[in-house]
Amino acid sequence: MAARNVVVAQSGGPTCVINNSLRGIVETCRRDPSTFGKVFAGHFGIEGVLKEELIDLSATPDEEIALLRTSPAAGGIGTCRYKLKKGQDQDFERVVEVLKAHDVGYFFYIGGNDSQDTAHKVSLLAADRGLDLVATGVPKTIDNDLGDAEFTLLDHSPGYGSVARYFAQYVRQANEENAGSCPADPVLVIQAMGRKIGYIPAAARLADPGREMPLQIYLSESGVTLEQLGENVLKQLEKDGRCVVVVSEGFDVGELGALRDNFGHVQFSASQTTVAQTVVNYLNVLKFPVPGKARGQVPGTDQRNAIAYASVVDLDEAYGVGCHAVEVAKNDGNGWMATILRDPNPSSYSVRFDKAPLEKVANSERFFPKHWIAPGGTDVTDDFVAYARPLIGSDWVSVPTVGGLVRFARINKAFAPKKLAAYTPQTYRKG
Amino acid sequence: MAARNVVVAQSGGPTCVINNSLRGIVETCRRDPSTFGKVFAGHFGIEGVLKEELIDLSATPDEEIALLRTSPAAGGIGTCRYKLKKGQDQDFERVVEVLKAHDVGYFFYIGGNDSQDTAHKVSLLAADRGLDLVATGVPKTIDNDLGDAEFTLLDHSPGYGSVARYFAQYVRQANEENAGSCPADPVLVIQAMGRKIGYIPAAARLADPGREMPLQIYLSESGVTLEQLGENVLKQLEKDGRCVVVVSEGFDVGELGALRDNFGHVQFSASQTTVAQTVVNYLNVLKFPVPGKARGQVPGTDQRNAIAYASVVDLDEAYGVGCHAVEVAKNDGNGWMATILRDPNPSSYSVRFDKAPLEKVANSERFFPKHWIAPGGTDVTDDFVAYARPLIGSDWVSVPTVGGLVRFARINKAFAPKKLAAYTPQTYRKG
Repeated sequence: MAARNVVVAQSGGPTCVINNSLRGIVETCRRDPSTFGKVFAGHFGIEGVLKEELIDLSATPDEEIALLRTSPAAGGIGTCRYKLKKGQDQDFERVVEVLKAHDVGYFFYIGGNDSQDTAHKVSLLAADRGLDLVATGVPKTIDNDLGDAEFTLLDHSPGYGSVARYFAQYVRQANEENAGSCPADPVLVIQAMGRKIGYIPAAARLADPGREMPLQIYLSESGVTLEQLGENVLKQLEKDGRCVVVVSEGFDVGELGALRDNFGHVQFSASQTTVAQTVVNYLNVLKFPVPGKARGQVPGTDQRNAIAYASVVDLDEAYGVGCHAVEVAKNDGNGWMATILRDPNPSSYSVRFDKAPLEKVANSERFFPKHWIAPGGTDVTDDFVAYARPLIGSDWVSVPTVGGLVRFARINKAFAPKKLAAYTPQTYRKG
Repeated sequence: MAARNVVVAQSGGPTCVINNSLRGIVETCRRDPSTFGKVFAGHFGIEGVLKEELIDLSATPDEEIALLRTSPAAGGIGTCRYKLKKGQDQDFERVVEVLKAHDVGYFFYIGGNDSQDTAHKVSLLAADRGLDLVATGVPKTIDNDLGDAEFTLLDHSPGYGSVARYFAQYVRQANEENAGSCPADPVLVIQAMGRKIGYIPAAARLADPGREMPLQIYLSESGVTLEQLGENVLKQLEKDGRCVVVVSEGFDVGELGALRDNFGHVQFSASQTTVAQTVVNYLNVLKFPVPGKARGQVPGTDQRNAIAYASVVDLDEAYGVGCHAVEVAKNDGNGWMATILRDPNPSSYSVRFDKAPLEKVANSERFFPKHWIAPGGTDVTDDFVAYARPLIGSDWVSVPTVGGLVRFARINKAFAPKKLAAYTPQTYRKG
């Protein structure tokens, strides 16, 4: 059987390790030229496929592909928030048309639930249109909301371990600052990403598993009100003279005038103000039992692209699941997402790569388990710590620098020659 | 001559390397027990001296003192924003009384202009009150506004190199994210510390000395208006489809309802909103030539306590200037601040430690040189890059971890027995 070409694309917000899954896919395909032909990357994810903007990765040497390990975000091939929703029939037809025109037999889509759903639908339509296409999903999300509630489809998503490690170190440092500067700044409010899903703010507990810090963690799911938060902070000030508050960006503080993105999701960081700012403003009108004021900070995109903080465990798993996706595509055919499952050994952490049906993943949803929220709603339980602790690894990642600056992979933006007429993605059309 | 005791105290906002100056002082004093007796640390700076809360550092072993090298912020002995201003005569008298009671012959004050002024005044009053006291200043500020306009008193402050390195890596990573995610998020606004002084936002240029990124840098001193900033961003979007905006927290966007701290300084981070948020809100009502929105982020205190980003050059210099301060105190007596001067060799960077009169430093002020702002007010010049580039060093600092988490120094909070009646610092008194 002749080798078939490959398209790989990324979707959604990036992570520290997303490019390492890309690296796993590219390197594994390169090692098997009789099965896999050219590897194309959709420039800015599915948008690049729709516009027939396919980066021909054969123009990028092995050395640069290797550097994807420590290249965070998605600066190489790009990502997008464009979603192929029900009713966008022309978009789906176009994707299949583009894949057909470039003799693509393998389609790898790195992303969250939406992306797995898209990959699944594309593969079904391809079969209907006479294109023999193997669509394979690769998990990615810092929010860790991909998979099922029982953690049997997927134990955790690549990307989460690194943002958890970022938060663990970040909170340790912030606590050091708060401890040293509390006469002037007794309250530090830190906002965490993750929308309304608590895995990222919960990771603040990893900074202090022994609970020695005056740390309060507010997940959106805790149901705590802003008023209660204020009372809790005053109590902590009474006791310790200082308080570090970690609050989810999805914490309910009332109407924030939030904008929404193409997925219909609230765009927290594009809001008129932030949850952290609202909490800080609220606290600063309360009467503190100590001198000084609250201040707040919003780490922003840094938490998903600060490569120095990346978890080596996460980096290795992101790479491994990318490699495994190629094996699944070759050996098991269409309709799977490569997965990471934890071996049931409580004394040491190890994982194995497996697979789950795309359809099942696309229709699954994972929340933060209610029983991992401690009574009172200002902490998470040791069960969460046991789950998350191994994901942040131990040592720092070695990040290559040139002239003191992080050296990222350089992807040669050599595009495959276009074979089709121009196309405007449906959502971008007027009227 | 009998050994005399030592008091060391820190003041103002912390840095990544402030504890390394402390380490230099403690280690150098320990090596010379015939000159230096017990080393006490003011708990939370001068506030601890006023309250007679003196940490006896002899209770902290050498191993923990050594770990101060990679312990950011001031979690060990603490810092404060309490200022001894003109008219606080009782506070000054109290400081001398406390130093006298504990047979203190050496007073080291790590801080900015205000601290050098305090050290100077304390030493004068001590002489008047019959206390033979050597007061010595140690420079510290991330803002780099300590010293004179000509860089002859002090080339740069310890702390600045590390925040500059943080910004250089931060902007590189943010640019990678912006490049990969621009179809949804074409504009990323990053707020930098430094009040109205441009050294920190200027350091963003170190991320891209070759000017390949669509990066715009707005110092407070640039005089650019918010309207002009908006026009510049639209032009960049027209040209590149994306834009990374670095803006000083002191950038003038109109009335922000800012609070003021005890020094009379505007407390930017305690404002009702942030400059970044104001800029983002302003941009998001403009008509972008591309889809997507602006988002913003405020790194906050992380930029001065993210030890993984610390500059090794800065760490070594902070240590060296701390050691040197002890030599100056011993050999040159009262009234000096230890300094860092750059050797005049354009082809390689090296410094020497020197000294400057406290009085001269206290009355000096350094601004960001106007001729380092590029025409148009959206960039800094190559002369700034030549000045700042060596300060960020090259390799990453090795940061010790235990169980995956940064391991900071543990200072034993063993307080010296009190010898005086309780005292309430003047500013804290009612009426």
